[in-house]
Amino acid sequence: MFVYADNAATTKIRPAALQKYVEISEQFFGNPSSLHTAGQRAKEELERCRAKVASLLGCNTREIYFTSGGSESDNQAIESAAIAGAKKGKKRIVSTAIEHHAVLHTLNKLQKEGFEIVLLPVGENGIVSVADAEKAINSNTCLVSVMLANNEIGSIQPVAEIGKLCRERGVLLHTDAVQAVGHMPVDVKELSCDYLALSAHKFGGPRGVGALYVKTGAPLFNLIEGGAQERGKRAGTENLPAIAAMAEALGEACENLPSYMRRVSALRDKLIENLSKIPHCALNGDREKRLCGNVSFCFEGIEGESLLLLLDDKGICASSGSACTSGSLDPSHVLLAIGRVHDVAHGSLRLSLSEDTTEEEIDYLSEEIPKVVEYLRSISPVWRDLQEGRRSYIL
Amino acid sequence: MFVYADNAATTKIRPAALQKYVEISEQFFGNPSSLHTAGQRAKEELERCRAKVASLLGCNTREIYFTSGGSESDNQAIESAAIAGAKKGKKRIVSTAIEHHAVLHTLNKLQKEGFEIVLLPVGENGIVSVADAEKAINSNTCLVSVMLANNEIGSIQPVAEIGKLCRERGVLLHTDAVQAVGHMPVDVKELSCDYLALSAHKFGGPRGVGALYVKTGAPLFNLIEGGAQERGKRAGTENLPAIAAMAEALGEACENLPSYMRRVSALRDKLIENLSKIPHCALNGDREKRLCGNVSFCFEGIEGESLLLLLDDKGICASSGSACTSGSLDPSHVLLAIGRVHDVAHGSLRLSLSEDTTEEEIDYLSEEIPKVVEYLRSISPVWRDLQEGRRSYIL
Repeated sequence: MFVYADNAATTKIRPAALQKYVEISEQFFGNPSSLHTAGQRAKEELERCRAKVASLLGCNTREIYFTSGGSESDNQAIESAAIAGAKKGKKRIVSTAIEHHAVLHTLNKLQKEGFEIVLLPVGENGIVSVADAEKAINSNTCLVSVMLANNEIGSIQPVAEIGKLCRERGVLLHTDAVQAVGHMPVDVKELSCDYLALSAHKFGGPRGVGALYVKTGAPLFNLIEGGAQERGKRAGTENLPAIAAMAEALGEACENLPSYMRRVSALRDKLIENLSKIPHCALNGDREKRLCGNVSFCFEGIEGESLLLLLDDKGICASSGSACTSGSLDPSHVLLAIGRVHDVAHGSLRLSLSEDTTEEEIDYLSEEIPKVVEYLRSISPVWRDLQEGRRSYIL
Repeated sequence: MFVYADNAATTKIRPAALQKYVEISEQFFGNPSSLHTAGQRAKEELERCRAKVASLLGCNTREIYFTSGGSESDNQAIESAAIAGAKKGKKRIVSTAIEHHAVLHTLNKLQKEGFEIVLLPVGENGIVSVADAEKAINSNTCLVSVMLANNEIGSIQPVAEIGKLCRERGVLLHTDAVQAVGHMPVDVKELSCDYLALSAHKFGGPRGVGALYVKTGAPLFNLIEGGAQERGKRAGTENLPAIAAMAEALGEACENLPSYMRRVSALRDKLIENLSKIPHCALNGDREKRLCGNVSFCFEGIEGESLLLLLDDKGICASSGSACTSGSLDPSHVLLAIGRVHDVAHGSLRLSLSEDTTEEEIDYLSEEIPKVVEYLRSISPVWRDLQEGRRSYIL
């Protein structure tokens, strides 16, 4: 059996989105900046896509900028708020310890340039506290950046509450909604955010395309200089086939959202229940406030990498930590932030489900994962030490 | 008849490239950063594409970085050289007056940050002088940026000679080869460049993807921060379907290059000959050292925009100036740089041919364009003034 349970890393493109990509590539081949009919037809299609994405996020068409993906969107939002902040002498940015590296590494860079970066802790459930955010915002703060849902442990953050705070204090709010869009209701007005980043390939759209919502009036500076595309804010010939495919995928995802969430969260809950029976394990992230497709566990006494490789032999595609940091030997910063010690953080497993996930696949995962964990423990010196009392169980 | 003669703005995607996009989207859906087989297969395909692009440009696999397109590549190359230059106190950058806006606007930004920007003039033929470049390079110079072929007038620049100079002086050289790759032989070693930017959709690849060649040892800093993709130099999940389609398109373009250049330059020459018969017009750019598909003219006494619209009515897709600046009322900076006065620069027309261009299309263009020019002149007050001696002809 083949089970693709790594949808948080990337999803398979939806057939309708791929078909749209092909159709637009063949029929709307003009450059939207060209004056002739082929160009103007492309321009109209581009603006139709922009209107569609905007309406699905609850904003105005002019508030959507197309980019090459989530990382670029995150970078541009944060850099823009930082440039505007610096001009007013406000160089403090408040964020969280569990952000994606597209946010954290941009903040690192800004720290080297003299910005004060405050990373809020999260609770054991992987959720930041609104009170902590409130305390951290002072008169020097130019930006708060809090992700909507975490990519590793699926915990959903109180962005709307933090957004209200930010509005009251006149501070800009960015939210990295890469994992959330298409997987839970997302409305920029309800979130009271000034920037929102999304990536198409996380909800069945193509890779290499994303969007940035920028509230009217919020500062926006170019990350990529050049032509006057995207109202002068993002140079480069518009990737129309991918943009149209993204709009198609987002439409499909949003249309089916309630039934998708109901069905997939039931599968998730069943899988969580089944895997919880493994001794000395712990669910990562909040039990309730979590993405409908996210299952994340730590298993004591094993190595996550070995677990992945053995699961791969059984046709199961899963992940430990996020895809963007795999290959690295450091334990996940997210797992450390929720209080997992190094040894335990190393024994992590993330399963991310999709619309295509079936009951049979959940049964297969529920059957195979405990076997592999048991096997790995049977050859683990750490597990022997735990069993024989030379070491204490943490989980 | 429908004639698409705006291939310098964007080409139609090659059928083989689109097919590759679909195939890779469906079959290589894993994230190359994932450890499981689906991810590792994607990673292998990614590296196969990198090796293919590298071999077609004459460099090592590790010298190719994939980006979202030509503008991003230009930005990253120039910013990288600037950061490295500033660290050594070298803040002079030498470029030309006819670069693409992705280069010029990045240089503008750097000028505001305290860099000294020297824009070399070009001759009437639209070609920069090597002697001028030599004079402009001094001990403070950190970068020279000269495009390989101009997007508006097709003039091919002496990059290899300037490259030799730069090597002797220990100065980095960037070349924007967006219009050149796939349309003329391009070998990074022959050019002696440190950076070379290319864009897939200019040679029949998909939109939204490009590459940056970076010579081993040349400085490279991130434009987009985040995950460790592209050896830590360009964050964001790799756009594998588009990268594979680009490699496919580049392979096809390079394979057919000699016959393509022979055939298309013959069509170009025929069109230039035919259009040159129109009274009071002038070819823009060099007669010999020009892209095989580029035809660019200025016609006295008419407005380029009206010309485009009337040609569009006849099914002819053409451009005046570059697509990236159309919509702007300023005359093209390139045409001004080759000495066209404002009035004349406004009456410009660019026809950019492709592999698909036929003899019949050239005949149609040769027949229709003179008629439209004649009609526009018949209703032009400027033309009447010229005819009646109240104004002097320039061309």
